[in-house]
Amino acid sequence: MNLPAFEDVDSAARQIAGVAHRTLVATSRTVDARTGATVFFKCENLQRGGAFKFRGAYNALSRLTADERRRGVVTFSSGNHAQAIALAGQVLNIPRVIVMPSDAPSVKRVATEGYGGEVVLYDRDTEDREAIGRRLARDRGLTLIPPYDHPHIIAGQGTAARELIEEVGALDFLFAPCGGGGLLSGSAIAARAMAPGCMVIGVEPAAGDDAVRSFRTKTLQTVKNPKTVADGARTPSLGSLTFPLVLQYVSDMTSVDDPTLLETMFYLWERLKLVVEPTGALGAAAALDGSFPIRGKRVGIILSGGNVDLAQLPEWIGRR
Amino acid sequence: MNLPAFEDVDSAARQIAGVAHRTLVATSRTVDARTGATVFFKCENLQRGGAFKFRGAYNALSRLTADERRRGVVTFSSGNHAQAIALAGQVLNIPRVIVMPSDAPSVKRVATEGYGGEVVLYDRDTEDREAIGRRLARDRGLTLIPPYDHPHIIAGQGTAARELIEEVGALDFLFAPCGGGGLLSGSAIAARAMAPGCMVIGVEPAAGDDAVRSFRTKTLQTVKNPKTVADGARTPSLGSLTFPLVLQYVSDMTSVDDPTLLETMFYLWERLKLVVEPTGALGAAAALDGSFPIRGKRVGIILSGGNVDLAQLPEWIGRR
Repeated sequence: MNLPAFEDVDSAARQIAGVAHRTLVATSRTVDARTGATVFFKCENLQRGGAFKFRGAYNALSRLTADERRRGVVTFSSGNHAQAIALAGQVLNIPRVIVMPSDAPSVKRVATEGYGGEVVLYDRDTEDREAIGRRLARDRGLTLIPPYDHPHIIAGQGTAARELIEEVGALDFLFAPCGGGGLLSGSAIAARAMAPGCMVIGVEPAAGDDAVRSFRTKTLQTVKNPKTVADGARTPSLGSLTFPLVLQYVSDMTSVDDPTLLETMFYLWERLKLVVEPTGALGAAAALDGSFPIRGKRVGIILSGGNVDLAQLPEWIGRR
Repeated sequence: MNLPAFEDVDSAARQIAGVAHRTLVATSRTVDARTGATVFFKCENLQRGGAFKFRGAYNALSRLTADERRRGVVTFSSGNHAQAIALAGQVLNIPRVIVMPSDAPSVKRVATEGYGGEVVLYDRDTEDREAIGRRLARDRGLTLIPPYDHPHIIAGQGTAARELIEEVGALDFLFAPCGGGGLLSGSAIAARAMAPGCMVIGVEPAAGDDAVRSFRTKTLQTVKNPKTVADGARTPSLGSLTFPLVLQYVSDMTSVDDPTLLETMFYLWERLKLVVEPTGALGAAAALDGSFPIRGKRVGIILSGGNVDLAQLPEWIGRR
């Protein structure tokens, strides 16, 4: 098993340069006053496709052979990776089939189709998306690009933290959301190399805290279709690459309940004027909840995405 | 009457440098594809205090004499100018009294008090905020800093367009919201000097289209407490400085109805991931509605503010 390393993140940074956005690093005097820390928000909600996922998707797709490109790719995703593969495939002119759950936020499905991806829906409760993806790959000669457990995906996702530390300098803490662990492990690889003293904290929704339990027990734990507003972090478990990477590079893991997550998300909307989706606010929620000693420290927070379905707002407002 | 000129905008730019944010210029391939234009959004929702108003407020307050600073200032505002004066006064350690309508969005009132401003409420339907402001100025020796009809305010507001054109180069169109005309006239002064061929378009809410009518008739028109979601543009009329400036420098004026405005605002939230308030979306609404020949052109749009009260969201979603 070849785990990606910092040189792969460096290589990914060169691969995506000029295609992915080098996203804004936002600061807020209000947040700094509230926390006593110096906080830097890496705004991956402003990334192409509305989430960090474009980094890994483009890194992976742009490294395919001419023959693989011609035949096309298939992936499975609850949303943002789907959009990212659809968009990266559009940029690179690669046919792409996206296996999405039938209950994915409609805004993510519409955006995926808008980028020209062929969408295949499945029932999250009764069907296995990986099996569907593998079958499509076999039957149609497509290359399977999984959402996180892939070296080029992980290395690509690590470029966000790489840019952040390159821009603002060393950090004492770095908070990143954790679904399947692609962003988290990529971020941790980058932080370890560029800011060795940085504590990297992975954050999950409380209802889907499999990675927290895997981290604590050092044994892979799973969760089945957790009910949480963090639709990007409903993944069943860490992967065969991301689990060892998380164990090796991540300093700690924590979880956040949905009301706290929504409260934080709306706080970011109101104070930073940035639309962040629930999953995208996981890192901020953990950083702001007072359970880590960030006072006086330099803190990076990855706002991982901003693809919200505004139709859900009234419900979210009621639940916070 | 001394109308501000481009040299005053230049001077304001130096005055606010390092204190006001040099805000992000956002672009969107989706918006460009929709319009056929190359669109640059100047993100004043990311300005300190959540709106462009900090530019003028800091420019004005920082030019007061030591004696004037010691005695303090008073202003009247529906919201964003109030916050900006409160914040600029905090930065400069100047006492400040803010006369706000009792029905101003609570988020703006809370933020104003949070910045340490003394808030005096008045009834929009029965009281005259200017008279209250003048009385407070006289009784307490305060300097009155009106929200738009003041050379330093206008020059300060012009620095947003100045930065935009400095960063992206000449524009063919520049769309700016119009309430009392401070932002619009400042923007137009900057555009005329830096991009003489640029068409500067002022945009009002349809229910409060006094400036459109003033522009067409060349006679000052007024409106009384118009009902519109664009709470930052409910001003009764252009001012004694902004009216001649608008006539001299602005190319055209137009108005947008509330449903279109809300539709545009949410479009900006969803596609740009930026929280823009209704007033802040006026320029974008006019640029996107197809009534100006922007196809193939380079278009600047000032997103003037992002101070929304999320409690209003369910109502807004229902009305769009």
